[in-house]
Parts: sequence; structure tokens; C-alpha cells
Amino acid sequence: MENEKQNNSPKFIAVSGGVGGAKLALGLEKIIQSEDLMVIGNVGDDFRHFGLHISPDIDTLLYTLSGKSDIEKGWGLANETWEFMSAMKELGGDIWFQLGDRDLATHVERTRRLQHGESLSEITDYFRRTFGIGATIIPATDDQLRTIVETDIGVLNFQEYFVRERCNPRIQNLHFQGSESAYPQKELTKALGSTELQSIIFCPSNPLLSIDPILSIQGLKKAFAESGAKIVAVTPIVGGDAIKGPAAKNLRELGYPVSATTVAKHYQGLIHGFVLDKRDREEAKQIEKLGISVLVAETIMNDLETKIQLAEKTLQFANSI
Amino acid sequence: MENEKQNNSPKFIAVSGGVGGAKLALGLEKIIQSEDLMVIGNVGDDFRHFGLHISPDIDTLLYTLSGKSDIEKGWGLANETWEFMSAMKELGGDIWFQLGDRDLATHVERTRRLQHGESLSEITDYFRRTFGIGATIIPATDDQLRTIVETDIGVLNFQEYFVRERCNPRIQNLHFQGSESAYPQKELTKALGSTELQSIIFCPSNPLLSIDPILSIQGLKKAFAESGAKIVAVTPIVGGDAIKGPAAKNLRELGYPVSATTVAKHYQGLIHGFVLDKRDREEAKQIEKLGISVLVAETIMNDLETKIQLAEKTLQFANSI
Repeated sequence: MENEKQNNSPKFIAVSGGVGGAKLALGLEKIIQSEDLMVIGNVGDDFRHFGLHISPDIDTLLYTLSGKSDIEKGWGLANETWEFMSAMKELGGDIWFQLGDRDLATHVERTRRLQHGESLSEITDYFRRTFGIGATIIPATDDQLRTIVETDIGVLNFQEYFVRERCNPRIQNLHFQGSESAYPQKELTKALGSTELQSIIFCPSNPLLSIDPILSIQGLKKAFAESGAKIVAVTPIVGGDAIKGPAAKNLRELGYPVSATTVAKHYQGLIHGFVLDKRDREEAKQIEKLGISVLVAETIMNDLETKIQLAEKTLQFANSI
Repeated sequence: MENEKQNNSPKFIAVSGGVGGAKLALGLEKIIQSEDLMVIGNVGDDFRHFGLHISPDIDTLLYTLSGKSDIEKGWGLANETWEFMSAMKELGGDIWFQLGDRDLATHVERTRRLQHGESLSEITDYFRRTFGIGATIIPATDDQLRTIVETDIGVLNFQEYFVRERCNPRIQNLHFQGSESAYPQKELTKALGSTELQSIIFCPSNPLLSIDPILSIQGLKKAFAESGAKIVAVTPIVGGDAIKGPAAKNLRELGYPVSATTVAKHYQGLIHGFVLDKRDREEAKQIEKLGISVLVAETIMNDLETKIQLAEKTLQFANSI
């Protein structure tokens, strides 16, 4: 099942956060030849816990694209067991971040390899080959980049905000620690410089917490713009709410209207196209006024078929701009 | 179930390796008041694996004395599950050292605490209190001490020899890396200097691989000798074979006859008494000729009752010398 690293440069780049983004990435993976697809994962959520390096968004991509993910729960592995956590509880250790017994192997092996000098992208590539995933999965950067959430209860790292505090604190500001010295992963840079590249898809991930950390990487926005590829964002906001996660709450707290238009404005100047949900079709005109082409589509992906359909429509749309 | 650290100095010290030693330690723990018993564990077997600090002998003591150990398997926790190992196998990681899902919590929490500056003995004390163990359990040293096995297939660390190679290589020499700069754990030093101390029991552990690493610690033999306590060793060799583990093979490879007498000679000058198995009673006289008192007893401990019986007889014997 090993898929050796491809030498060809990808035609399509998908930019993704965790669960929501990974759904579209899976759809894209099903319809694009392996060597033509590169999936870029957010590392702003990465953190150390129990001395382990945990990369939640990268793992969600690995688990989703290999068919190992827990579809119902939305995170982690299917058929997971929790004996480690149960024993950790007895030991009086931290239990706010749930680590399944099988998931733990990913973190332990990643941490071991990092300590032996492998880069996060080398390790990610090893895992995706071991899991039998054809498409390339690349952390946006191999440098340290961390999403820091300034809230009404203090400054939190992403997982403290997201998991420990269940997104309850009110966000006052966001910043991306390390972004001034984080550079795009080198294969991503290469792909962006290749004439092979046709489109870049921003998956329906939280623009503030999942895509912005990636866009904060030195020179990446410019490299996106200069790549000549058509850049299309798929809305994570449908009917004035987030399909999943705290995006709506985040936008509201930072003073934005919770709408697809807000997301399109957020990406204005960078994207050429925007995939709007059919429930929000009345927003199409105002988004087009921003100089952004609009595709109205069904964007809620409840099964593999809808994932593939949205992937197909998004690619055709990008191609048509 | 927390048992706060006792301020009293112990009357009895048990010196133990892994499974065999822990059996007698459990017997002693059942008949000696908590504040009167200190169990000293070997750390020569400690190693790092998957970036985790693993202390197999200390854990065997913790699991055995708390009633959590897997009696049948002889190591690890009862009712253990193995999902982590299964996932690690799929990841192509190292699988020669089996780590159960619940056992893993011990190593992860220990490693986390070590990284936060706690000493191995502080962590061990935290664990034994959390597990509801009354007696003190102390790593022989908080300094780095590692058993190195020189064999016909090369120089191995202890776990490589013991687990990965299943004790198959022929031992040519043993040494204890770090022993020149390892000092006895400070509460052990204090206990050895106290007039409260009555006896020191060498549990039926492998003299070469489990007790010698402890005795290699700077000044410890001298402190044992000068403590004024009666020192009694319980034989790990019965009927010309080891009750458990590679002790017989080790002795043979290093050119010694495999007998209780060899073990007694090995400790000659340090111990005052030797508990000989009843199957080897004909060796009593030659051991007494070494200037060592002998107790002939049933030393095979198959259940809690026999553990307690041997513990009682050993203490009475030490007291009678």
C-alpha cells in the first residue's frame, strides 16, 4: 500500500484546517489523481501535551483521507478505545485533551521521529504513505507557528481555548506566534512556483482559526497571488451559522456579521472565486461586487457522494474563472 | 487512598529487582507497618523508548504492591489492552517492547514530570501514594545508572538484551554505566544512617542483573555494611535453576556453578544471613562455612500466603542472627 512520493508537481492545492476542511479534501482526493493533489494542513493548532507533539489538523487529514476517522464524532479514529485516558485519570494526570489508545501511537511515533531530527513534513509524508494515502499532505510550514487566542479569561493557546475551554471564552484578538519567522514548507513553495499548478482551493475551514494561521506564514499570500493559479474559497458559513465549530461565534465576537459575504470579504484580493451555499444565494450579487466570481452550490457534505459532488463542482468552477 | 509520606525512618529495607523480588516485597508489605518498610528498586533496567522514560523494575514494584499487576504474565498490568501497540505496528514503529494502553499512562506521566524537573524518586512517591501503597518505594538512585550487557552479538542495553533479544545472546561481561557518578537516593542514605533500621533484605532477584546495579552505586555497599542492620539475602536459585528469568544462564555464561552457594558467595562479606530453599538444604553447611547464617525455607512463592510466610520467616531469621 506504500505510495512513493511523486516527483510531479501538483495541479491542485487544497488548503485545509481540521474536520470541515478535511471533508472537501477527501472529496478532492477521490476525483483527482494522486500526483496532482497536494493538501496543505494548518499547524497553528499544534501543541505539546504529555511531552508529545500533537498535530490535530494534520492528523484529521491523515485519518480522514485514509478512511480511519470517526465520522460520527468528527475527530479521532473510528473504533477507538480509551484505556490510556482511564489510567491517566487514575494517575491524577491531565485529562482535558482526550487521546485514544490508537491515536496515541501517532503522537508517540511523531514525537520520536521529531526528536531524531525528522521534520514535521517528512513525518507527515511517512504517515500518509503508511496509511495508503495517495495525495500529498503537507504541513503549511515546518517552522514553529502557534495560534494564540486572546480572550476575556486571558491568553490561551489554541487547544486550551478550543478543547479545554470548549470555545466558551470571548475572543478579543488572535495572533499567530512565530509567523514572522515561519516560512512555507519547501514543496509547497515549489508547487506554487510550478506552471503545472491550476487551482488553489480554500476548504470550508474556519477563516480566522484555520486558514489565517496558514496565510500568516511569511510570503505565502504573495506566493499564492503570484502562482497564477485560480484561487477559490468554499464557504464554511451557511445560513448565518458555521457548519461546524466556532467560526460563527468567532466572527460575531470580533464584530463581523456572520455571513458568507464576511468570509468572502475576508479573502478579498486573494481569491478569484467563492463557493456560496445555495441557502445563501441572495448574497451572490454582493460577493460578485467584491470582484469575486460566485458559484452557488450545495456545500453541506453529509456523505461521500456530497463530498465528491462539491469537489467536482468546485474544480469545474475554478477552471471556468 | 492517599498515604502521606512518613517522617519515621524505616525499620526494614527490601532491595528488589523486578518480578521475583517484588513477590517478596509484597509479602513484606503485608506484614510490616507502612512507615516501617522501605522498598529499594533497581533502575539499571530503565531506558528511553518512544521518547518515554520507562522504569520497568520500579513499575513492577508499584503494580505488584498495589495489586494491579498481571500475576499470570508476570509483568505489566492485569486486564491490560494493546490497542496502542496494534496501531504502532500499523505505523511501522518499534514493537519489540510491549507497552499496554494503561501501562503507557505511567510512562507518559512519569516522562512529563521528569521534564518538569521532578526527580524519579519524587515521581515514584507520587505514584505509590496515588496507587494507595503504604510502604515507601524508592529508586536506588536518582542519578543515571544503566546496566550494559556485553554479549557475543555486541554491547546491548539491558532491555535490548532482556526483551528484544530474549536473553539469547551469551553474556561476556556486565557493567553499570554511570555508577561512578551515581549516589544513593537521599532518603535511602538517611534510612541507612538511622538507628531505627533493623534489617536489610535482598529479595530473590537476579544478583548480577538486578542487585549488582544497586550495589554498584557509590558508597552504597559501605553504607549497608556500616548501617549496623542485619543483611539477609533470599536465594533466587532453587534446585540449580532460576525461579524466574535468566539468572541461571547468566551465572553459567560467566563461569559460575549455578547454585544457591554461588549466590551466597557473590554476597559474601556483605550479608549476614542467607535464605536457602529447602530443595537445596545440602548446601547449608558450605554456605555457613562462608561465615553466613543460613535459614532453610520454602522460597517458591506461588500465592499471597507463601509470599507472607517467606516474608515472616525471613524477618524472624534476620532478627535472630
